[in-house]
Amino acid sequence: MGKFCPNHSNIKYTLPDIDYNHAMLEGFSFELNAVDGRARAGTLSTPHGDIRTPVFAPVGTQATVKGLTPEQLKSVHAQLILANTYHLYLRPGDELVARLGGLHEFMNWDRPILTDSGGFQVFSLGEINQITDQGVTFQSHLDGSSHYLTPEKSVEIQENLGADIIMCLDECPDPYDREYNVQALERTHQWAERCLAAHKREDQALFGIVQGGIFEDLRERSARIISKLDFPGNAIGGLSVGEKKTEMLRILDIVPDLLPKEKPRYLMGVGTPLDIIQGVDRGIDIFDCVNPTRLARHKAAITRHGRINISNNIFSEDQRPLVDTCTCYTCQHYSRAYLRHLVKANEILGPVLLSIHNLHVLIHLAEELRSVILSGNFDDYRDSFLEKEIETGDLS
Amino acid sequence: MGKFCPNHSNIKYTLPDIDYNHAMLEGFSFELNAVDGRARAGTLSTPHGDIRTPVFAPVGTQATVKGLTPEQLKSVHAQLILANTYHLYLRPGDELVARLGGLHEFMNWDRPILTDSGGFQVFSLGEINQITDQGVTFQSHLDGSSHYLTPEKSVEIQENLGADIIMCLDECPDPYDREYNVQALERTHQWAERCLAAHKREDQALFGIVQGGIFEDLRERSARIISKLDFPGNAIGGLSVGEKKTEMLRILDIVPDLLPKEKPRYLMGVGTPLDIIQGVDRGIDIFDCVNPTRLARHKAAITRHGRINISNNIFSEDQRPLVDTCTCYTCQHYSRAYLRHLVKANEILGPVLLSIHNLHVLIHLAEELRSVILSGNFDDYRDSFLEKEIETGDLS
Repeated sequence: MGKFCPNHSNIKYTLPDIDYNHAMLEGFSFELNAVDGRARAGTLSTPHGDIRTPVFAPVGTQATVKGLTPEQLKSVHAQLILANTYHLYLRPGDELVARLGGLHEFMNWDRPILTDSGGFQVFSLGEINQITDQGVTFQSHLDGSSHYLTPEKSVEIQENLGADIIMCLDECPDPYDREYNVQALERTHQWAERCLAAHKREDQALFGIVQGGIFEDLRERSARIISKLDFPGNAIGGLSVGEKKTEMLRILDIVPDLLPKEKPRYLMGVGTPLDIIQGVDRGIDIFDCVNPTRLARHKAAITRHGRINISNNIFSEDQRPLVDTCTCYTCQHYSRAYLRHLVKANEILGPVLLSIHNLHVLIHLAEELRSVILSGNFDDYRDSFLEKEIETGDLS
Repeated sequence: MGKFCPNHSNIKYTLPDIDYNHAMLEGFSFELNAVDGRARAGTLSTPHGDIRTPVFAPVGTQATVKGLTPEQLKSVHAQLILANTYHLYLRPGDELVARLGGLHEFMNWDRPILTDSGGFQVFSLGEINQITDQGVTFQSHLDGSSHYLTPEKSVEIQENLGADIIMCLDECPDPYDREYNVQALERTHQWAERCLAAHKREDQALFGIVQGGIFEDLRERSARIISKLDFPGNAIGGLSVGEKKTEMLRILDIVPDLLPKEKPRYLMGVGTPLDIIQGVDRGIDIFDCVNPTRLARHKAAITRHGRINISNNIFSEDQRPLVDTCTCYTCQHYSRAYLRHLVKANEILGPVLLSIHNLHVLIHLAEELRSVILSGNFDDYRDSFLEKEIETGDLS
């Protein structure tokens, strides 16, 4: 042990001897239903039901996908939602959620939930006081109160929240800063082992996370180490965090193939329709992103090839739905003119209806990808999508 | 003619000769299903379906009941909604709504709609430049632009919007200012005649409005004049605008009995559960109020006897629903603790779920009143409600 101990630490930390036997998982399995090139269609079973992959997961940061009821989420076929550990730890508190029966009961969502580790928000929202190998001291963005997050604490919080899939605490540095990535990577691996050792609940699957910025050698090293830890699922973090799209694709060209085929692969915080297709094309199974609901609150509708700023004047008398061929509730019942009126009048039904549409676009795309993988037509589908993408311009 | 010509006008206005034959109404009727004391259970048929009274109508000011889809409104048994002419005239514009097929089509609501005349908002939101017998010049609260509202213009706007029930333009003065009420009343009557003359659409019922502040003699005069104009329905305006509850009840003790029994009676902008019972007890059939949705946005839940400020600390671990016996979607699925979390975190699902509950409380109360009227038990029901009200304190 101790092989990952970094020499850049503020506190010298020696890894404890870790029992590599995972918590026995109950109610989990992952089955590959079809593989077409590198694209995969699978079924991830969890204690709260099956997730058919590829899948796009809406983000419900504060135990609510902003503005939508669970019924509305089910109407767009949401199979899995993500909640944020950082936010829920600070408010209402993970122990309170546990006393109230856990996240599913608390928020009235009976399908699978995934929580992140809290790390990404600590690094992006909180004010960091100190990072050591032991953990991170940060101040709450809500009230400035001081908190200390360690791998063990992150697992404890996530066990209290009670999601089906939980994530290892990782460090997410500037993707272009090689020196920082070299150091942070070792810490991330050390933390992954500690999360594994700390995790006890048998009804939660703990996923590992590959880091390494835009550096192929670091990503390769990380993928090999995380794979060896034998998590029931593996994630790729630190992408879509400001790097160029070509850099992201270069990393996605190598990492998924280094992860175990028999485990689900989760690309964190991605995507757009194009990202999802390019991710699936490289062997990714699970995606999540705040974009569909965040864009909705910024008056934008997603289409497969581009965005619509619905507050634009040109839509004031436009009786068409957002997307002619779209089967979502919003497109079946409301005109662009009405949606424009709602957002111009700052009516909250505006973001609600746009969120329904935007989530539908990504979830329905993932469903369609599954269908073409099952029928062995993924390459044709991807090629014709990319051709249209070139015609209509980059979405991102 | 000219008998209502006031002597306080800035512009001397002579009423035109009016043909008292109303627009022939198509698809409207009002049937009294039961009368119990002064309380009535009726059926008001409209081109968009029947309204079973007593009924409480949610307010959808800007062509949306804030945050709720039509399906959510139907889940709380909303039969009739109100939209505001003033707001829709200014944005998106009544002519645009007409070109888009009218309000029902625009907002995806296929049940009855009622629009007010715009007068109340002109007097309360706009900046009034001049009131004459001819009409009102005001500035938009949105952009300061100047507009001129007359009885004819109000009817024209409402015909463009296309609601099933539309209202006469009236003046709504300080209920305690006798001199102003004397003058405004004559103008209101004159305007009622002009609305009647202007109204052409046969698929809309134009209701008259009784004014007169807290003054019994003025109210009586107004009720007699408005009744004579033979509108297909009659409203009582200028109540719940700041007068004491005892003053409102004193007026409600005399006005409904002066209005034709065979026409629906609408008490505008009222109420609370207590108001609704006291109104029904005095012969009112239709109610509307922004309170249920406005209170929801201010973190308050309505109960039959009192309000709950859900952001209060005492609810942080309260696993009970808002109201134990409530059958609404919110109470069936969410704890007070979760609702408190949502409003503390400024999540829009908070007001959405509170609105569903609050609307349910008032609509369900009206349904229950109908049921006890039909079974001849209204007096007992009212007495036991008032008894409980005295125990628990005044709601308003």
